[in-house]
Amino acid sequence: MVNVAILGFGVVGSGVAEVLATNGPHIDQKVDDLIRLKYILDVRDFPDSPFADKVVHDFSVIENDPEVSIVVETIGGAKAALDFTRRALRAGKSVVTSNKELVAEHGCELLKLAAEQGVSYLFEASVGGGIPILRPLNQCLAANEIEEITGILNGTTNYILTRMIRGGLSFDAALKEAQANGYAEQDPTADIEGHDACRKICILASLAFGRHIYPRQVPAEGITGVTLSDVAWAEACGKKLKLLGRAIRQADGRVCAYVSPHLVDVENPLAGVEDVFNAIAVKGNAIGDVMFYGRGAGKLPTASAVVADVIDAAKHRDEKKRVFWAEGGEDTTVSPDGLASAWYVRGSGDAGAVQAALPGARLLARADAPAGEFALLTGPMTRPELDGKLACVKPLSVFRVLD
Amino acid sequence: MVNVAILGFGVVGSGVAEVLATNGPHIDQKVDDLIRLKYILDVRDFPDSPFADKVVHDFSVIENDPEVSIVVETIGGAKAALDFTRRALRAGKSVVTSNKELVAEHGCELLKLAAEQGVSYLFEASVGGGIPILRPLNQCLAANEIEEITGILNGTTNYILTRMIRGGLSFDAALKEAQANGYAEQDPTADIEGHDACRKICILASLAFGRHIYPRQVPAEGITGVTLSDVAWAEACGKKLKLLGRAIRQADGRVCAYVSPHLVDVENPLAGVEDVFNAIAVKGNAIGDVMFYGRGAGKLPTASAVVADVIDAAKHRDEKKRVFWAEGGEDTTVSPDGLASAWYVRGSGDAGAVQAALPGARLLARADAPAGEFALLTGPMTRPELDGKLACVKPLSVFRVLD
Repeated sequence: MVNVAILGFGVVGSGVAEVLATNGPHIDQKVDDLIRLKYILDVRDFPDSPFADKVVHDFSVIENDPEVSIVVETIGGAKAALDFTRRALRAGKSVVTSNKELVAEHGCELLKLAAEQGVSYLFEASVGGGIPILRPLNQCLAANEIEEITGILNGTTNYILTRMIRGGLSFDAALKEAQANGYAEQDPTADIEGHDACRKICILASLAFGRHIYPRQVPAEGITGVTLSDVAWAEACGKKLKLLGRAIRQADGRVCAYVSPHLVDVENPLAGVEDVFNAIAVKGNAIGDVMFYGRGAGKLPTASAVVADVIDAAKHRDEKKRVFWAEGGEDTTVSPDGLASAWYVRGSGDAGAVQAALPGARLLARADAPAGEFALLTGPMTRPELDGKLACVKPLSVFRVLD
Repeated sequence: MVNVAILGFGVVGSGVAEVLATNGPHIDQKVDDLIRLKYILDVRDFPDSPFADKVVHDFSVIENDPEVSIVVETIGGAKAALDFTRRALRAGKSVVTSNKELVAEHGCELLKLAAEQGVSYLFEASVGGGIPILRPLNQCLAANEIEEITGILNGTTNYILTRMIRGGLSFDAALKEAQANGYAEQDPTADIEGHDACRKICILASLAFGRHIYPRQVPAEGITGVTLSDVAWAEACGKKLKLLGRAIRQADGRVCAYVSPHLVDVENPLAGVEDVFNAIAVKGNAIGDVMFYGRGAGKLPTASAVVADVIDAAKHRDEKKRVFWAEGGEDTTVSPDGLASAWYVRGSGDAGAVQAALPGARLLARADAPAGEFALLTGPMTRPELDGKLACVKPLSVFRVLD
C-alpha cells in the first residue's frame, strides 16, 4: 500500500482526490502496490465532502506518519509550501507538486534534497497543466541534445489575445471577459505581465539544459502593450500575435531565455493554438521539431498530471538516477539583446524617415489602417541595433517576429 | 556497461548507431550504466562505415553473448524480425523496435514473452516516428481512462493530401512528387490504402484500451478515392480532407476502430498538420484533449525514439509492472457502421432528389463547381442509414465529417 497525503484542498488538490477516487481501479492496474489517499491537510474543514474524514490541520501528523510515502503539494506560493516540501523530503517522502513558483525559485535545492533522501520530487503539472511535457522532455527526448524550446505557456493571455484577434475586443474588454469566465484572476498581473510564463520557461529550460535558470535571469514582457491595431497589422502580413516563452541554447552552452509577444506566421502550428490552450514546441538535434498541445490549466487536467507523477513516484521508489539539474549562476544565461530576429515596428507620422533608417524593411499595407499610422517588418537584427537605427523615432509598438 | 546489438543496418538502424555515437556523452548522464553498441547484424558488410568492426552476420553470436542485454530490431516485416525477437527475448534480452507490422500483429505474444522473461519489449518508434506518444499514453496519462484517439498517422498520405489542397495537384501527380522526394515507396500501397495507418491505430488502441486489436479487425479506407473536387468542396465549407485513424471506446468497453478520410474543420488543430508531419489527439476523462505533433518518419527522428527506449530499458531492468496488454478476440471491437456522424456526399445530376432523400442536409456552394456537380453535408447518422437513404442515387464520393 502506498499512502498519499494532499496538502491544500483547493481546485487542484480536490481534483487530485477526485481523480484518485474516480480512476482508482484503472490506476491500480498500473502499479504493483495500491495507491490510497490517507490525509488531506487544510486549514478548513470540509464536512460535506466525501473526503471529510481524511482532513487534518497539522502537518506534523503527515510528517510523522511513516505510512505516508507520497505528499502532494497543491498549496501554491513559496512560503508554507516550501517549508512543508522540505520537511516532507527530509522525512523520506516523495513530493509531487503543481507549484510552478516553488519549482522555478527553489527547484534545484529541492531536487538535491530529494536525491540525498533517495526519494522523488516531481512537478509535471507545474508546466502546461495536464499536457505531458516534462516527462517526455526528460525521457522520450533523452537521446537528444535539446536546442530550443518555444511555448505558449499561459492560457489567460492566450485567451485574451484570441479574443482580440477573433472577436475584435480591446485588451481591456478581453481581460474583463476572461475574468468573468474564470480564466483570469481578479489581480491578473502575474499572467498579463508575463511572470507566470517566465516561471514556466525557467522550469523547462532548467530541465532541458541541466542547470537552474531563475526567473530573475529571464526578462519578461507581457501583453499589456498589444493593441487592436497591432493585431490588424499582424493579420495583414499573415501572422498572429502570441505571447511566447523561449529558451535557446547558444553555441557556448549558455541559454538565451525570455518571454515576450511575437508575430507568429499562420503556417506555424503555434499560431493555431487558441483560447486557453497551451502548446510547447521543442527542437532536438535528432528528433527535429515536436509539439505538445492541450489545456494548460483547469482542475482535472492539472490533477491528471499530478496523479501521473504520484503513479511514477510509487513505481520508481528505488530508482537512482532521477530528474535532476545542477545549481545555476550568472554564467548560465545570456541576454536576449544578443538574439537577432526580424522585428515588427508600428509608428505614426513620417513612414519615409523610418524606412530610410531601416533599409530593406518591408512596409505593410492594410485597407483600414488608422490615418497617419504605418507598420513595417525589418530584416534580422538585434534589439540594440534596432533601437540605434530608430534613435530619432518613437515607435508605437515593437515586437519580435518568430523565425 | 549495457551492451546493445542492432539488427538490420538500414535507415533506422544506422540512425540508431549515429544517435548513440553523437549524443553518447549526453545519454551517459541519463543512465547509471554506460550504454555501448557491441554488434550490428546485417547480411551486408559496411567496410567504409565507422561501425564496420561491429558488423556480424550470424544472429546466434548476439543471442549467445551474455554481455548483450538490449537488442534493437530495425529489420522490419514479420518474418526474420519475429524469429529474432522471440529468440532475443527468450535469451533474456530486452528488445526495442520501430517495427509497426510486427507489433500490430504479434505485440501481445511478444509482450507476454518479455514479461515472463523479466525483460522489456518497447516500441515507441513504431507509431509517429520520433513523436513521443506511447510512453506519454502509458505514463503521463496513466491517471486517465482514455476515451478516444484520433490521429494523422501516415506522413506519405498527409503529404499527398497537403499537395492536393495547397498545390492543386491531382492525386496521381502528388503521389509521383512524393515518390520523387523519397516520401513514398515505389510500391505505395501500404500507405495510400491505409494499411500503415491501420497498424498504428491498432498499436495505439491496444495500449490505450488494454487488449490486442488486430489489423484484420480494423476496416481501412485509403485516399485513392479523394479527388481535387472533394478538396475544393471541403474548402468551400471551411474543412480539410485528412486521413485519420480513430479508436473510440464504447460504453460497453469495446472499441470502434477504423481508418478513413475525413473532412476536418480548419479550427481543429489536426487540420493544421501538414506535409509529412503526424499528430495524435488523445481524449482522457480527466485531461480532456491533448495532442502530440512532430515528424512521423525519417532516420534521426525515428532513431531518437528508439534510443529513448534503449535508455528506458537500461534504466528499468528490474521493473515488475511493464507495458502490457491482454490477448484480444472478436469481442474487443465493434464495426464503425454503428458510429453516427455527419457525412459529406458529392454527386452529379439531380441535387434535388438527393436533398429530398436527406432532409436537413446542407447543400454546399462554390464558385468553380464543375457543371452538374453538387455536394452536401448531412446531419448525424450511421453509414448504413446513409446508404439506405441514398439507395436510388450513386454518389461520387462519401466521406465522414469529424465532429
